[in-house]
Amino acid sequence: MSILTRPILEINLGNLKKNYLLLKGLAPKSEAAAVVKDDAYGLGAETVAKVLYDEADCRCFFVAHGIEGEKVRAVAPNAKIYVLQGIGEDSLQSFQKAKLIPVIAGPEQLKFWKEHKIDGIKPAIQIETGLNRLGFREKDLFEMSPDDRDLFSLVLSHLACADEKDHFMNEHQLQNFLRLKERFFSRLPASLSASDGTFLGADYQFDIVRLGAAMYGINTAPYRENQMLPVVKVLAPVLEIAELQKGDFVGYSATYRAADNRKIAIVSIGYGDGVPRSLSNIGKVFFLNGGKTCEARIIGRLSMDNIICDVTEVPNLKVGDLGHIVNEFYTLDDIGRDAGTIAYEVLSRLGKNPRFKRIYSK
Amino acid sequence: MSILTRPILEINLGNLKKNYLLLKGLAPKSEAAAVVKDDAYGLGAETVAKVLYDEADCRCFFVAHGIEGEKVRAVAPNAKIYVLQGIGEDSLQSFQKAKLIPVIAGPEQLKFWKEHKIDGIKPAIQIETGLNRLGFREKDLFEMSPDDRDLFSLVLSHLACADEKDHFMNEHQLQNFLRLKERFFSRLPASLSASDGTFLGADYQFDIVRLGAAMYGINTAPYRENQMLPVVKVLAPVLEIAELQKGDFVGYSATYRAADNRKIAIVSIGYGDGVPRSLSNIGKVFFLNGGKTCEARIIGRLSMDNIICDVTEVPNLKVGDLGHIVNEFYTLDDIGRDAGTIAYEVLSRLGKNPRFKRIYSK
Repeated sequence: MSILTRPILEINLGNLKKNYLLLKGLAPKSEAAAVVKDDAYGLGAETVAKVLYDEADCRCFFVAHGIEGEKVRAVAPNAKIYVLQGIGEDSLQSFQKAKLIPVIAGPEQLKFWKEHKIDGIKPAIQIETGLNRLGFREKDLFEMSPDDRDLFSLVLSHLACADEKDHFMNEHQLQNFLRLKERFFSRLPASLSASDGTFLGADYQFDIVRLGAAMYGINTAPYRENQMLPVVKVLAPVLEIAELQKGDFVGYSATYRAADNRKIAIVSIGYGDGVPRSLSNIGKVFFLNGGKTCEARIIGRLSMDNIICDVTEVPNLKVGDLGHIVNEFYTLDDIGRDAGTIAYEVLSRLGKNPRFKRIYSK
Repeated sequence: MSILTRPILEINLGNLKKNYLLLKGLAPKSEAAAVVKDDAYGLGAETVAKVLYDEADCRCFFVAHGIEGEKVRAVAPNAKIYVLQGIGEDSLQSFQKAKLIPVIAGPEQLKFWKEHKIDGIKPAIQIETGLNRLGFREKDLFEMSPDDRDLFSLVLSHLACADEKDHFMNEHQLQNFLRLKERFFSRLPASLSASDGTFLGADYQFDIVRLGAAMYGINTAPYRENQMLPVVKVLAPVLEIAELQKGDFVGYSATYRAADNRKIAIVSIGYGDGVPRSLSNIGKVFFLNGGKTCEARIIGRLSMDNIICDVTEVPNLKVGDLGHIVNEFYTLDDIGRDAGTIAYEVLSRLGKNPRFKRIYSK
């Protein structure tokens, strides 16, 4: 018997690289950029960018913030690194130091850029096509001088509903993008799609596709079975196994009561490690015992450091066995659904936790 | 006009210390231990522990994992440091190196301890009184030899419903604790309560109270107005201000549609920074403009890096102005409620994000 206490995060960089290449294959005429913002969705931007740069010839990256770009530059000396949240007083140094390319999304940002230009850098421009998030609005584009329009090296926008193949917004945004690009930036290379848009086909792919969520194993085309290989596995050891008597309560606020005698396991992971608390009384932990996959329902509220699950039907369970919190049959997408959110948020949280024993494999 | 891009996390260590002392004053006969697990709920265990050790004479800390204990030891050379998740093969070195005190919660852990004792350390024992989480069950205690019982230096348990003053579980657990302590560990010092239990009064305080959430400003006694000073403030800059036309959609999956012409602001913070995505179409951002506090509703889905809010009623708003995401009139408790969870989870997430500009004040 092993006595263990720490949760484990396994990151399969080989599968991540394969996913990148598979997605790249879907858009053979486009440059395949890797989105490594939010610390590569929590998985470690430097590690992920290094693998893609060294082993998959990726030469284009997107991050959200200047400080993120600096980290990517350290492992990708000859790549273009675009910064989606733009440039400001609090990030200017990062841009200068790491030769980052700002994505300019509005007139105030443009004014700031013109006052703080960096030699050798031509920014990208983001234009608004229907998401109503960051981007120049049409009226701003009409007010922009031809000289200002010449400052840019790439025009991009972002889709709102690309995970729904037949959503009317897709065509609506595509037509807006084509129209505005033709009118104002006809000679510039263009980028419209992230992972989900890439699956919509060649019309949506333009010159650069921005590959993020799908590369990390998330199903961004949920209208069909996931094509992506799993990248993340989360495991946590059983600290204790105990009996419940009929009528016993479990966890904070006593939200679970045993209807008969049950067996429970206390597993050493909680919302402090990034498991959504909204899985309380809903989520599952899996045990692989004797070649059989056994499902154990989470009962009661998740706490910061522990999950309690019903292991009455799990044979031969021992203290120190590893429960599977995320794996190939309870995926990030499954957890997103059960937790009332999306896989992106689940992944972004899990990766940030220093308590994990973190294992990278290839 | 300032052009800014990064979100800001302000941590008021002066208020944290005052909260610790206020709570300590509620339990004048008990030792006031500080709970700094989960990286001090994300706020930085070393920084928090150092302030409490150096300036508030705190000599007792609780963490969840051995690796967390090592960090606290670095700033608290002469403190007792208890580790709630216990000891195992994957944490033994931390205990040896940093002289940590394991909290032993079951027979298997006890066996492991007896095989790996550390000179000069007497562990604590956790006993189960109704939470049905970690802890020796009554039958385990009856099976324990008197010699084994003599191994321990502290007996502790944990309350399930102490945030509800009149919940029947409080008295039920108190009586269980008193009975088991008297029967098996009558000579040991005892600890039953975290912040919430401390508010239940002297009967619940015993020899050590374990102060966590309330010290960080969370209201752990929600049946009355919060007595705690705010410790955390989260701010994020406006990247762009734009107009919505009647009928425009906003954000992913087009979940918001403008019923008339509106003004929106795109604020540079998202679920990647730890703001719960479940605040979509529910939460609020506040602006302090010209001495007036203006509420701006979050519209559409939160994305990883941005929040979109309705600023139609906010006068004189400029790009670069700071939106208040967490502050004294939209507290962690308010956000927990609006996000369908609790302040503990919100705080634990926010603190972990490397994109924040982190400002400690005293």
